Amino acid sequence: MTSDDQQRVRAVGRGPKVRAAVHAATLAELVDKGYAALTVDNVAQRAGVHKTTVYRRWEDRESLVVDALTEHVAADIPVPDTGAIDTDLRELAAALVRWLTSPAGQAVLAAMFSDAARLPEIAEARTRVLDDRLRRAEPVISRAVERGDLPAETDPHELLKALAAPIYFRLLVHAEPVDDATAEHAAELALAAAHAGVLRRR
Amino acid sequence: MTSDDQQRVRAVGRGPKVRAAVHAATLAELVDKGYAALTVDNVAQRAGVHKTTVYRRWEDRESLVVDALTEHVAADIPVPDTGAIDTDLRELAAALVRWLTSPAGQAVLAAMFSDAARLPEIAEARTRVLDDRLRRAEPVISRAVERGDLPAETDPHELLKALAAPIYFRLLVHAEPVDDATAEHAAELALAAAHAGVLRRR
Repeated sequence: MTSDDQQRVRAVGRGPKVRAAVHAATLAELVDKGYAALTVDNVAQRAGVHKTTVYRRWEDRESLVVDALTEHVAADIPVPDTGAIDTDLRELAAALVRWLTSPAGQAVLAAMFSDAARLPEIAEARTRVLDDRLRRAEPVISRAVERGDLPAETDPHELLKALAAPIYFRLLVHAEPVDDATAEHAAELALAAAHAGVLRRR
Repeated sequence: MTSDDQQRVRAVGRGPKVRAAVHAATLAELVDKGYAALTVDNVAQRAGVHKTTVYRRWEDRESLVVDALTEHVAADIPVPDTGAIDTDLRELAAALVRWLTSPAGQAVLAAMFSDAARLPEIAEARTRVLDDRLRRAEPVISRAVERGDLPAETDPHELLKALAAPIYFRLLVHAEPVDDATAEHAAELALAAAHAGVLRRR
């Protein structure tokens, strides 16, 4: 192995690590200081790399944030199948609460509800992730309708939105902490609305 | 009247106008460009005043935004009394939608859900306004409980939050437009939950 080869191996081996460290530092800076105050210098310092290393891979603050978020935004929220709609909805809501209060979820929120949300790539990532989550949770509702546990005309997306709305509202608008009680309350609310027939397909 | 007096009169007369113009320009810049990109220079240019005029009254971008918002954040959302809880809730929800889609409401949202929300004064103003709105709308629910139109144990604040949540969720999380149909849907949802007894005092 020539010295050139060795250098290449080191660079390739270091590549993914630097990338991961810079991503993690970007998300942490977003949570701590917000998008408006985020600088490439601070990210580099937090990641323990020289700022020219950051600038070599990412053109500016915008591309750094877009890259870190699009890679970490997709939350693997588990989709339950307990056999009963009330426990399924409670599980779904509790999983959303767990994600929203995790470091990854907090970084995503800090970016999505900051001026970074004005970047088209961030807005697109948000839509993609929300659509993906709705699509993956849809079977929970379809199964309940098939079992006769929910009115036949129940719209899965309307029900899932009714489930998520009180959780996001509490967190984003009232800036109050969310927990298991929040999840349980959201599940009760969405279920009552579904049974009353106000979440039908329109 | 001496020339000194005349100067003073002019300055006093111009004061409120400059203040109003700078406030309006600040809110407009918040909507158009967001907090992260807002500069005193751009605000001054939009208001048609020299930037030193702005710096003489406001120390920096932060105090400018805090001042403009705390003065304009209090929305005069009308509180209905139609004699029936379903129409009262529809009216309340429609009034919230009208405010959220008005220029003032959009400026407030643009600031509240940007990095400006990290400023303690903005966070405090948000809490104050939300508490004030809940307090003012409370009689709508109390009257319905007294008439026997809602379960006796209904919590007014829980019901009002259930009413607002789907509207904010659609606007902030899904970034979709809100309209009369959104308001009607929110009212149906909150009413169904209240009748099912899931919005009781805890």
